[in-house]
Amino acid sequence: MERIGKFFFHGAFSGALLMLLALPAMSTELLPSWGEGEAKAAIVDFVTAVTTEGSSDYVPPADRVATFDNDGTLWSEQPLYVQLAFALDRIRDLAGDHPEWRDTEPFKSVLAGDMAGVIATGKHGLAQILAASHTGMSSEEFSRIAADWIATARHPKSGKLYTSMIYQPMLELLDYLRKNGFEIYIVSGGGIEFMRPWAEKVYGIPPENVIGSSIRTRYELRDGQPVLMRLPEIDHIDDKEGKPVGINKFIGKRPIAAFGNSDGDFQMLEWTTSGEGRRLGLLIHHDDAEREVAYDRTSAIGKLDRGLDEAPERGWVIVSMKTDWTRIFPK
Amino acid sequence: MERIGKFFFHGAFSGALLMLLALPAMSTELLPSWGEGEAKAAIVDFVTAVTTEGSSDYVPPADRVATFDNDGTLWSEQPLYVQLAFALDRIRDLAGDHPEWRDTEPFKSVLAGDMAGVIATGKHGLAQILAASHTGMSSEEFSRIAADWIATARHPKSGKLYTSMIYQPMLELLDYLRKNGFEIYIVSGGGIEFMRPWAEKVYGIPPENVIGSSIRTRYELRDGQPVLMRLPEIDHIDDKEGKPVGINKFIGKRPIAAFGNSDGDFQMLEWTTSGEGRRLGLLIHHDDAEREVAYDRTSAIGKLDRGLDEAPERGWVIVSMKTDWTRIFPK
Repeated sequence: MERIGKFFFHGAFSGALLMLLALPAMSTELLPSWGEGEAKAAIVDFVTAVTTEGSSDYVPPADRVATFDNDGTLWSEQPLYVQLAFALDRIRDLAGDHPEWRDTEPFKSVLAGDMAGVIATGKHGLAQILAASHTGMSSEEFSRIAADWIATARHPKSGKLYTSMIYQPMLELLDYLRKNGFEIYIVSGGGIEFMRPWAEKVYGIPPENVIGSSIRTRYELRDGQPVLMRLPEIDHIDDKEGKPVGINKFIGKRPIAAFGNSDGDFQMLEWTTSGEGRRLGLLIHHDDAEREVAYDRTSAIGKLDRGLDEAPERGWVIVSMKTDWTRIFPK
Repeated sequence: MERIGKFFFHGAFSGALLMLLALPAMSTELLPSWGEGEAKAAIVDFVTAVTTEGSSDYVPPADRVATFDNDGTLWSEQPLYVQLAFALDRIRDLAGDHPEWRDTEPFKSVLAGDMAGVIATGKHGLAQILAASHTGMSSEEFSRIAADWIATARHPKSGKLYTSMIYQPMLELLDYLRKNGFEIYIVSGGGIEFMRPWAEKVYGIPPENVIGSSIRTRYELRDGQPVLMRLPEIDHIDDKEGKPVGINKFIGKRPIAAFGNSDGDFQMLEWTTSGEGRRLGLLIHHDDAEREVAYDRTSAIGKLDRGLDEAPERGWVIVSMKTDWTRIFPK
């Protein structure tokens, strides 16, 4: 029994076994934080169709690939991408070793807490912040830095841990898909090595299923020990057209379902839903100013404009956080 | 039962369940094409140590990552890398549309069957062959081209399908590791999109577990349909220092076991065996001129020199194909 117990808590075995054992009990509790509207119906219809053997829409488990954007889709991206908050915190942490930053942009503005000043330094300033905060250490060191930070860093408005600012309905959706034999990937514009240290604990998504933007690394020996050093050079931007490119490179299969919230996810949904057979494309619309934040067509972060226009003709589901979700954050 | 039957043949569930059911029966048949020498003992000792709960060497299933080189490790790489044979065949297939190739190197030499002439064109010539044979189509088209070719292409000496020129002892090793909860990846200098179309059928390794060299792709619309176009630009060379880089990027975990046959695998083994805890590095030595090909320190393909020198001090296992393997190819 101990042996069985061990496997019971690991990976696909657990998912498959749980499904066999738990199906009757589950059906009454399906996606409990989703209201009984069109969005939930579309999800359940899709999953039922692709998992029903003999159905013309049936998809074998090996091809049940689902991809999820992270920022704004699985967790909050307002008022600032979490990774940017991490970068700014890290600049402040490192400032003691860099007295020259007191008089040099963009660091001067970061240290003064002047976000307008930071933004005024443009892409070049952002690249400098990224290089100073994210590179020059080994991948393993960066992993520890990111894990340590996320363990205590808190959202500026709610005061909650960032890892609590995740969407309960999406956790339920991840779980529902897993129980139906889906392989789930994060496909995010965020940094791959920023997300991997905590994505498994927070979402149940292991490092090898996290795809994101990356910088180049170089294999070298340091004191005789091999390390992968993080270089200040972009390897891949996993946003817009970069999402299908990243999916194809990492997975080598076209997803049958894709979930996002902004125009940065447009091509991922387009690529996914252009494939043959039954597909699902879904966009989360941040329209709940009371329980979260309302933003879409003109937002600097998570802009959703073209997606809103074209979703109907493309058959994509638009989820209203306000009306489709009975709960936003976990208890 | 039908439902259980379905899962029985998929992924980790199958591996874990088979292990529970089949262990007693298996033990007499363990790695049957491996002789009872030090190499087999080292493999079995390692697997037993990392899978025995309570052992100080125990590794949970999620961290049982094993990486395998392909050319010369899982299948034959002599007298020519299979992918190069594919490229040359494709140049011959396309020559009708390129009359100018009759007078232009390196194509002239390819069409004349003059390998010395091809080699004389150097890296630049090889890049042109690669570009002409591997780029300019979509990823999906390339996948079909590679799959169609490998379905009928035959080894120049044995006359057998290339997919039959795989090593039976390594198939048994893949199976043994899978049954012990390992996640197996190919990490090859070969092209990622060349291997993915057939690696699952031949080795049981799905597309998402194949890592290799890659060219850049670009997402674009062709007749309104999205495609990923293969561009004549290198994205990643998955050889030597590139192997740990690729492993870290794709998997985000350090393997605990790595298998190769040439100095192109040196850094992958170094990276793997430098980690904490019990590790396994293994190199296959092609020393069987009778049943396969004998080559090592001076070979242009699959050179194994530094690896032979340093294996003893690094604790890496050297497998003699001649004495450690009772059979080379499948029946």
